[in-house]
Amino acid sequence: MPISESLKNKTVAVLGGTGPQGRGLSRRFAAAGIPTVIGSRSAERASRTAAELGENATGASNAVAAAAGDIVIVAVPWDGHGDLLKELASELVGKVVVDCVNPLGFDRHGAYALRVEEGSAAQQAASLLPGSIVVGAFHNVSAVLLDDLALEPVDTDVLVLGEVREATDLVQDLCAVIPGVRGVFGGRLRNAHQVEALTANLISVNRRYRAHAGIRVTDLS
Amino acid sequence: MPISESLKNKTVAVLGGTGPQGRGLSRRFAAAGIPTVIGSRSAERASRTAAELGENATGASNAVAAAAGDIVIVAVPWDGHGDLLKELASELVGKVVVDCVNPLGFDRHGAYALRVEEGSAAQQAASLLPGSIVVGAFHNVSAVLLDDLALEPVDTDVLVLGEVREATDLVQDLCAVIPGVRGVFGGRLRNAHQVEALTANLISVNRRYRAHAGIRVTDLS
Repeated sequence: MPISESLKNKTVAVLGGTGPQGRGLSRRFAAAGIPTVIGSRSAERASRTAAELGENATGASNAVAAAAGDIVIVAVPWDGHGDLLKELASELVGKVVVDCVNPLGFDRHGAYALRVEEGSAAQQAASLLPGSIVVGAFHNVSAVLLDDLALEPVDTDVLVLGEVREATDLVQDLCAVIPGVRGVFGGRLRNAHQVEALTANLISVNRRYRAHAGIRVTDLS
Repeated sequence: MPISESLKNKTVAVLGGTGPQGRGLSRRFAAAGIPTVIGSRSAERASRTAAELGENATGASNAVAAAAGDIVIVAVPWDGHGDLLKELASELVGKVVVDCVNPLGFDRHGAYALRVEEGSAAQQAASLLPGSIVVGAFHNVSAVLLDDLALEPVDTDVLVLGEVREATDLVQDLCAVIPGVRGVFGGRLRNAHQVEALTANLISVNRRYRAHAGIRVTDLS
């Protein structure tokens, strides 16, 4: 899919871009021709991942990546999510921050949703980043499928949550650069928790059916 | 789809069977040839709804319906859910109880998930019904689509949650009697909350896209 007008001249930064979800998303954005800055605690590791991804990808520290991106994806582990965002709040002022973090716990029965003081990771981000426009998205997309360009189209919708129409529209456009993926507006941030937590269900599905499950929303014209 | 062996000689009861979701489900089960007892606070109202539905449907009080069903669907409003189940606990002993209740609040911004002491409606049911096998299912299916037999197939999957494989398998078989619907195992009851709450997102989707949205799980073979 050609890049939409809204994404022209936009740089995407991916905090935690060396983790599975972050690397998979970075790979897809770079492959679509979008300048993509991979952020990591270690700038060196970020640069190595960027070199693997090739054209359109560069690596930097999370802080430098945050400053460089027009759209900044947060793909860090839940543990440390709040601390990192607090640290980068000034770099992220005025930007569209896309939180795709799933606060999950794991035990011998599999995954389960963690209780989050603010309601959800996305709402935590919104409360820590009053100068940014926070959108929730990319929660349920399999990192395995994202990370393998040979596997396309990726058969999934992405629920996009947020308060500001212009920002959720932009993130829906960003979803569409990944072949097969469709961004669907999924409500306000107060309804982000269940989308984050649904990843625990998809992990159960994957176990039972040996799949890399995603979801599609039906009956949209 | 022909009725599976597992459902032969089984009666389904639907508590709250005169409400939109309950009536829609009852209509589909009766249309598939399953003896269906519609329960309501008012036996008279239940009988009227049963008469509308025609063959295979009968009406009764919730207590009589609970006693009559081998599989008992709970489709009552969230408000009163706990009280009703407490009342019917002895009638429900030994049965598969399928909770499809979504604890939601509504305001001018639309729907949002309510916080539930036990975690979810399904977990509340399990805690009030220690002698029953509780399964969560049918949370996200549009009542409008269910209630209109002319609209088929119904393009949606149903996430089925529970602890007991035999019971979740049975409920997946029950899903399959509705044309187009597929039951997908979606994890344990501790992961029911987000499936219930996801209905709030689908309500946002319906508003934005003027749809009767459902979900499909992708990548299952």
